[in-house]
Amino acid sequence: MFCAIADGSGPATRVYEDDEVVAFLDIRPIARGHTLVIPRVHTARLEELDPASGAAVFRAGQRIARAMARSELATDGTNLVLNDGRAAFQTVFHTHLHLLPRWNGDRVRMGIGLVRRRPHDPETTAAIIRAGLERLTAEEHQ
Amino acid sequence: MFCAIADGSGPATRVYEDDEVVAFLDIRPIARGHTLVIPRVHTARLEELDPASGAAVFRAGQRIARAMARSELATDGTNLVLNDGRAAFQTVFHTHLHLLPRWNGDRVRMGIGLVRRRPHDPETTAAIIRAGLERLTAEEHQ
Ligand SMILES: [Zn+2]
Ligand SMILES: [Zn+2]
Repeated sequence: MFCAIADGSGPATRVYEDDEVVAFLDIRPIARGHTLVIPRVHTARLEELDPASGAAVFRAGQRIARAMARSELATDGTNLVLNDGRAAFQTVFHTHLHLLPRWNGDRVRMGIGLVRRRPHDPETTAAIIRAGLERLTAEEHQ
Repeated sequence: MFCAIADGSGPATRVYEDDEVVAFLDIRPIARGHTLVIPRVHTARLEELDPASGAAVFRAGQRIARAMARSELATDGTNLVLNDGRAAFQTVFHTHLHLLPRWNGDRVRMGIGLVRRRPHDPETTAAIIRAGLERLTAEEHQ
């Protein structure tokens, strides 16, 4: 579905596009102006997404968020959200960045930060992530 | 606080750093491995963030998410979330990208997609955002 939007053959209410990305309105918006930014090249998961395309998606997202603040929408803020994987509530498997316009006092509940804990062993956790980065670097140099 | 982490003088459990960004564990994690990526250069809001720095933050985030999947954390997915502005629940005013590790069947509720509506006038909304982009371009060329 998003592939058809990316190649121009599918219907979408387009907000912005360039060689690398397309931005269009979510057909089931959480708030007015809820926009999705997708890379033109299909990838289901962030794992496969070329980092340069990922950066282009984010750059477009930042730019559109700035534009919304200057537009008649007159947003006060934005949530930029990329859900990667079914475990993270990804539902459409063409990578997409949500731009969720926000206004002071709106009723949108975007629930990051609801249940926070004390970390039990941050040093070990950080070492595990650093080991993952080394593994990734080793893969890339194979 | 994040400025001190960015310049190396403040305490943090660091996961990754380079010339442009620092990544470290959130001190009040939503899930194990909950990481924040910040630009070295202070900006309170996305508005002020140099787009190249924004792209670097996102690139590091994507890379760390991939690393987590390969690490002992063995994540199934990730939410990448940037809350820009108090209206969007930003609480620390040094721009930061959340990396929230996810596993199939975890109990984390990351509430985007809870309340969706039919858009009432997408064409007008898109035109408004496009006008904002034109305004932004005009500003940049002044
Ligand atoms: Zn696709
Ligand atoms: Zn700062």
